[in-house]
Amino acid sequence: MKGNMKALRKIKPGPGLEMQEVPIPSIKASEVLIKVHKRAICGTDLHIYNWDEWSQNRLKPPLTTGHEFYGAIVEIGADVRHYQVGDLVTAEMHLVCSQCFQCRTGNAHLCENVVILGVDGDGCFADYIAVPESNLWRVPKDIDPELAAIYDPFGNAVHTVMAGPTVGKSFLILGGGPIGLAAIPVCKAAGAALVLLSEVLPFRQELARTMGADRVIDPAKEALSEIAKAMTSGQGVDVVLEMSGHPAAIAQGFRSIRKNGRYSLLGIPAKPLSLDLAKDIIFPGVTVQGINGRRMFETWYQMDALLVSGKVDLKPLITHRFKMEDFQKAFEVGLSGNAGKIILE
Amino acid sequence: MKGNMKALRKIKPGPGLEMQEVPIPSIKASEVLIKVHKRAICGTDLHIYNWDEWSQNRLKPPLTTGHEFYGAIVEIGADVRHYQVGDLVTAEMHLVCSQCFQCRTGNAHLCENVVILGVDGDGCFADYIAVPESNLWRVPKDIDPELAAIYDPFGNAVHTVMAGPTVGKSFLILGGGPIGLAAIPVCKAAGAALVLLSEVLPFRQELARTMGADRVIDPAKEALSEIAKAMTSGQGVDVVLEMSGHPAAIAQGFRSIRKNGRYSLLGIPAKPLSLDLAKDIIFPGVTVQGINGRRMFETWYQMDALLVSGKVDLKPLITHRFKMEDFQKAFEVGLSGNAGKIILE
Amino acid sequence: MKGNMKALRKIKPGPGLEMQEVPIPSIKASEVLIKVHKRAICGTDLHIYNWDEWSQNRLKPPLTTGHEFYGAIVEIGADVRHYQVGDLVTAEMHLVCSQCFQCRTGNAHLCENVVILGVDGDGCFADYIAVPESNLWRVPKDIDPELAAIYDPFGNAVHTVMAGPTVGKSFLILGGGPIGLAAIPVCKAAGAALVLLSEVLPFRQELARTMGADRVIDPAKEALSEIAKAMTSGQGVDVVLEMSGHPAAIAQGFRSIRKNGRYSLLGIPAKPLSLDLAKDIIFPGVTVQGINGRRMFETWYQMDALLVSGKVDLKPLITHRFKMEDFQKAFEVGLSGNAGKIILE
Amino acid sequence: MKGNMKALRKIKPGPGLEMQEVPIPSIKASEVLIKVHKRAICGTDLHIYNWDEWSQNRLKPPLTTGHEFYGAIVEIGADVRHYQVGDLVTAEMHLVCSQCFQCRTGNAHLCENVVILGVDGDGCFADYIAVPESNLWRVPKDIDPELAAIYDPFGNAVHTVMAGPTVGKSFLILGGGPIGLAAIPVCKAAGAALVLLSEVLPFRQELARTMGADRVIDPAKEALSEIAKAMTSGQGVDVVLEMSGHPAAIAQGFRSIRKNGRYSLLGIPAKPLSLDLAKDIIFPGVTVQGINGRRMFETWYQMDALLVSGKVDLKPLITHRFKMEDFQKAFEVGLSGNAGKIILE
Repeated sequence: MKGNMKALRKIKPGPGLEMQEVPIPSIKASEVLIKVHKRAICGTDLHIYNWDEWSQNRLKPPLTTGHEFYGAIVEIGADVRHYQVGDLVTAEMHLVCSQCFQCRTGNAHLCENVVILGVDGDGCFADYIAVPESNLWRVPKDIDPELAAIYDPFGNAVHTVMAGPTVGKSFLILGGGPIGLAAIPVCKAAGAALVLLSEVLPFRQELARTMGADRVIDPAKEALSEIAKAMTSGQGVDVVLEMSGHPAAIAQGFRSIRKNGRYSLLGIPAKPLSLDLAKDIIFPGVTVQGINGRRMFETWYQMDALLVSGKVDLKPLITHRFKMEDFQKAFEVGLSGNAGKIILE
Repeated sequence: MKGNMKALRKIKPGPGLEMQEVPIPSIKASEVLIKVHKRAICGTDLHIYNWDEWSQNRLKPPLTTGHEFYGAIVEIGADVRHYQVGDLVTAEMHLVCSQCFQCRTGNAHLCENVVILGVDGDGCFADYIAVPESNLWRVPKDIDPELAAIYDPFGNAVHTVMAGPTVGKSFLILGGGPIGLAAIPVCKAAGAALVLLSEVLPFRQELARTMGADRVIDPAKEALSEIAKAMTSGQGVDVVLEMSGHPAAIAQGFRSIRKNGRYSLLGIPAKPLSLDLAKDIIFPGVTVQGINGRRMFETWYQMDALLVSGKVDLKPLITHRFKMEDFQKAFEVGLSGNAGKIILE
Repeated sequence: MKGNMKALRKIKPGPGLEMQEVPIPSIKASEVLIKVHKRAICGTDLHIYNWDEWSQNRLKPPLTTGHEFYGAIVEIGADVRHYQVGDLVTAEMHLVCSQCFQCRTGNAHLCENVVILGVDGDGCFADYIAVPESNLWRVPKDIDPELAAIYDPFGNAVHTVMAGPTVGKSFLILGGGPIGLAAIPVCKAAGAALVLLSEVLPFRQELARTMGADRVIDPAKEALSEIAKAMTSGQGVDVVLEMSGHPAAIAQGFRSIRKNGRYSLLGIPAKPLSLDLAKDIIFPGVTVQGINGRRMFETWYQMDALLVSGKVDLKPLITHRFKMEDFQKAFEVGLSGNAGKIILE
Repeated sequence: MKGNMKALRKIKPGPGLEMQEVPIPSIKASEVLIKVHKRAICGTDLHIYNWDEWSQNRLKPPLTTGHEFYGAIVEIGADVRHYQVGDLVTAEMHLVCSQCFQCRTGNAHLCENVVILGVDGDGCFADYIAVPESNLWRVPKDIDPELAAIYDPFGNAVHTVMAGPTVGKSFLILGGGPIGLAAIPVCKAAGAALVLLSEVLPFRQELARTMGADRVIDPAKEALSEIAKAMTSGQGVDVVLEMSGHPAAIAQGFRSIRKNGRYSLLGIPAKPLSLDLAKDIIFPGVTVQGINGRRMFETWYQMDALLVSGKVDLKPLITHRFKMEDFQKAFEVGLSGNAGKIILE
C-alpha cells in the first residue's frame, strides 16, 4: 500500500514523542500490513516517553513507538498462508529467531535474539503497522476491540498467574498498575480462593475493588503482612505476584508468603536491593520466579479462553480513551498513575 | 462411651442390609469416637447392598457399612493431640499404613495396605464411629453439614479434575452420577472454559444443567463426539473425565478428545473392553490416567478452599434426605439412578 | 544444483522398492540441498517395502523413501540464515505447520498438519535431499556420522524414556528392536537404577546385553512379570516402555508395573486389544502415555548432550552396513529381525 | 535398657562440647532404641561447637548433639510394627507433626512444627539414641556402614540436585564442602552432561576431581562465569547449585546461569546480600529455589537406588575417622575445611 500515515515517534534522544507524517510501511513476503483500530499505552511507553536510563540504552531513534494494538489486515505478503485481507488481529510484538535454544525448546518468550516492535523496530502508534505472519493472533469475533488491543499486558498478567498452581490458592498481588489489576480476575478465573492486592494510590485501590479483589490493602496505612497472614490461618499466602517493582513491596511480599510458596516477579525494580536469602527463601523453601513477557502462544490461547468464556471481565480496566492526536494528554494521565489502561483510537 | 447404638449392617453374605442394635465402638489411644450427624450413600454402598461380585470378594460380614459422614467428636483417645470433644469433623476413611513406598512418597491414597472403613472395617451408617486422629478432617465452620458429609465423593471429583491443567481447558464429563455432577462446578471453579456432560437419564441431565454444565448431551439421542468437536473448533476437548464406567461412553471419550489430551478414568468398568491403542492413544499422544480415591490431604485442602470461598455450590447435588430407619427407601431411590446424593440423617 | 541422482523409490502401489535415476531436487528459498552421506532403515521403511495396510492408506507413489540420514549442505536457499554450504547436518523429517494449536503450544511433534519426508514427500534414500532450514539439526563435530544418521529413532527412544521421572527408577522395556535397544543406555544415562528388557529373538537378546540391560528376559521361556516383581521388592517396575506393539507384551507390562507407575506406549499394535481398565489402570493409579515422534527440539538437545558427554554409546546398535545399491539385501536383513540398525552408505 | 552411656554434649551456653556419662534414653511406645555404630559430623555441628549466633538462638543446653548416624535397633516400643531388634537403620532426624499443611500435602520436610534431634532434642553423638519408628530408614544390606551414616547430608545433595530436570543438563556447583562434593556424583548419576564445581581450598578442589567433576574452578584465580559460559556454548549452565553460602559465589552464580535456568540455594549466607532482581532473575526468566532438608521420604528412596545400583560412589568423600573420644581432633579437622566427611566411630 502506497501513501503516508501518521505515526507517534521518538525522533531523537530525549523526552517526549512527536506525531509525524511517514510512509506507510512496505511489507516483506512473510508479513502482513495492518490498519490499526485501537492502541493502548504500556508502562514501557511511559519510560520511553520520559526517556529514562533504560530507554537511553535500548532505543535507537527515529522510531515509531507502541506495541499494544488491534486492527484489520489490509495487505498480505506473498508467503502468508493462514491470514487474509479483512482478518481482525492483534499480535505478539516480540519477534523471535526460531533457532536459539529457548526458541527451539518451547520458551520463545525468552529468545536470545528477540526484537521488540515499538522498542527495537517500528511499532503500532501509527495508522498502519507491518507484522510477520508468525506473530499474528486472530481475534475471536465476540471480543471487544478495546480488549483485543490489550492482549500484551493481559498476557503478562495471565503468564504470571499461570506460572504455578492456582486452584484453591491464596494470592497477594503487589501493585495495582494495569497488569496487577488485570491479574485480579485472572486469579479468580483460575480458581484462586483469595485475592489480596496492595496499592497506595486511592484511584487504583478503587479500581482493584471493581476488578474483584477480596481485600485491597494500603501498605502505607495498614500492616500488609499481618493482614495477609490473618486472612490465611496465620501462614501467609500461597502465591505472591510482584507487579510493582518497588523495594518495600518486594520485602513485604517475603513477610507475607507461606512456606513452600511461589513468589513470581514481573515488576522491574529500578536498582539492586538487599535480600535475606536464608530467612526469606532457603529456610521457608520459597521459589522465586523471574517472569518475562508471555508464553508464545500458550498464554494467548489461555487469554482467548478466559475472555470468550466470560470468566474474565477486563472492561473496567479501560479507564481512558483519547484520539491519537491527543497523545500528550494521554501520556500525562498515564504518568499520573490515576489510570487503568489508556486507549488511543 | 458405654451403651448400644443402631447400625446399618451387612450381617451375612447376600443382598440387603439390616438395622441392628450393637455396642458403641470402643476407641484406641490414637482414635476418637464421633457421634454421626449426617451420612451419605455412595455407589459403593449400592454395590454392597446388591452384593455384587466385587462385594462378595471383598467384604467379610458382619460389618457396619457406610463411609461418608459428618459428626461431632464425643470422646478422644489418650494419644490424640490435635482434636477435642465437640470438634466437628468428617474423615478420610482410607486407613493407610504410613510405611509403604506409596505412603512415604506422598501417594498414601495408593497405599499398598489400605483398610477402608465401611468396607473392610466398621463404617459410619451407625450412631457412632471410631476413627484414627490421623484421618480426621476438621470442618470449617461455615460449611453446610450435609456438604460436610459428602467430602469423600466430592474429593473423588476434585482429585480427578485436578489431576492435570484445568485453566482455560474444555472438559467432557462422561456420566452424570453424583461424582460426575460434582465435577461440573469443580471444573468451572478450576478455570474450565467449557464443561460438557454426557448422560442418558433425564433426571440427571436436568441436574447437570442445574450444576452448571454448558451443554448436556444425551448420547442415546445425539452424536456425542461430533458435538464435542463442534464446540472445540473441531479438535476435541482438552480433558475427558470418565465417571460412568460404561464401555460405550469410554469409547466415545476417545472419539471426543484432542491430540495431547488428558483422559482421566475414575468410573469402574464391570469387565475388560477393547481399545485401539494406536488410533486412540499413541498417534494422538493422549495420556490416560487411572484415578483412585483422593489425595491425602491435598485434595481436602482444595475442597475446603472451593467451598469456603463460595466458588463451588454443591447444595443442588443433594436431592434426597431420609431417616436412617428408612434406609430401604433410600437405597431404592439410589438404585433407580434418579438421584443426586442421598443423605441419611 | 542441476543433474540427476540415484533414488530408492516406491514407483507404484505394491511391495518392494526400485532404484531410479531422478533429477536432483530443486530447493525453495527456505530450504537447503543436502548431499546424503549416511542413511538408516527404519521399521516404517520395512512397512513401506512390504506395502502393508498402513502404507496402502498413507503413501501416494511415486515417492523417494527414507527419513533417517546424515549429510552435508551443498546449496542454500535465499532466505536461509543460520546454515552454510559445508555444514554437516541431520534433520527432523516431520514438517510442521507452525500455526496449529499443538505447534503454537510447544507440541509441534503432534502437529495437526504434519507432512513427513520419506512418507508424504520425497525422502533421503537418494544422493540428495531438500529440507527446510527450520528442520535442520547441526551435528556436533565429535559425533560419529553413522550415529548422526540415526537421530530419528534415537529421538524416539529419548523422548519415550524422558516422558516422566527417570532418576533412580526401575524400567522394563518391552521389545528389543532398534528403539528398544537404544532406550537401554538412555535409561542408564538418565539415572535408571534397573533396566530390564523383554525380547524373544536371541540375536536381539544378545544385543540388549551388549547395550547394557541389567537383565534380558525371554517371555517365551520365562515368567516376565514374576521376574520384574522379584527384582523390584515385589512391587513391579516404576516405568514400562512399550516398544514392541505386541498384545501379549502389552498385557505383561500391566502385570509388571507398580502402583502409580508410568506406562509409555511407543510400539504400534496392529489391531485393537482387550484391556481390563479397572484392574490394570484405575485401581493401581497407573498412567498410560501415547508417545509419538520426538519433541521439537528439546529431544534433539538431549540427544546431543547424551552423545557428546559420552553418557550414551550407540555404536553397538549399528549391526549392518550396505551400499545403497544393495538395498534388497539390507531390507531382507531388516525384515529377518536379526539386526540392530542398518546403514545405507 | 538400663544403664549409662557416653554422650558428646553441649552442657551450657558457650563454645565446645563435653563427653559425659548420662543415662541411656528410655523409649516411648512409638520409638526404638538404637545402638549407634557410626556417626558423622555435619557443618551444623561445627556451628554448634563454635556456638555461633544461630546456635545461641536455637539451642537449649544441656543437649546431646549429632544427627548423622548408623546403628542397630536394640529395643522396640510397644506400638512399633515394622522394625525388630537387630535391624540396621539410619534415620531422618527431623521429627514432624503430621498435621500441619506442609505435612499433610507431601512436604513434611517443611513442617511448621519440626523438632530436630541433635539440635532441639538429644542426638546421636552418644552410644545410644531413641528415635520414633516413623523416622527410621532401613539400610539395604549391601550399603557400607560409613555411607549409611551420611544419608542426612547425602540427602541434602540428592534433594537439591533432583529439585528440577537433570538429564542432559549442565551444572555449576558453588562450594566444595561435603554436600557440594556429594552432589557431583549425584548430578552425574542423574544424567548431567557437565558438572563444574567452584572452590577455593586446594584440598577440596582435589577431592572434587576425585568425585568426578568435569572441571574444578578456583574463583580466586580464574574467571568463573567466563569459564562456565565458554563450556556451555556461551549461554551459561542450566543449573546452579549454591552450596557455599558465600555472597561472592552467589553473585557469580547469577553471572554463570543461562536464561530460564534453575538456581537452587542450599548454602546459608550469614547475612543479607544485594541482588539485582531485574538483571539476574526477571529478564533472564531464572527460577531461584530455597532448598531445605530432604524430602520425606522420596529422597531416601532415591538415595537407596543411587547407592545400591552403584551409580553413585560416595566412599572417597569420607576422608577422616576418629574415635568418639577424640572428638576434639575431629572438630579441629572439620573446622579447618581440609576434610570431606568425618566419621566418629
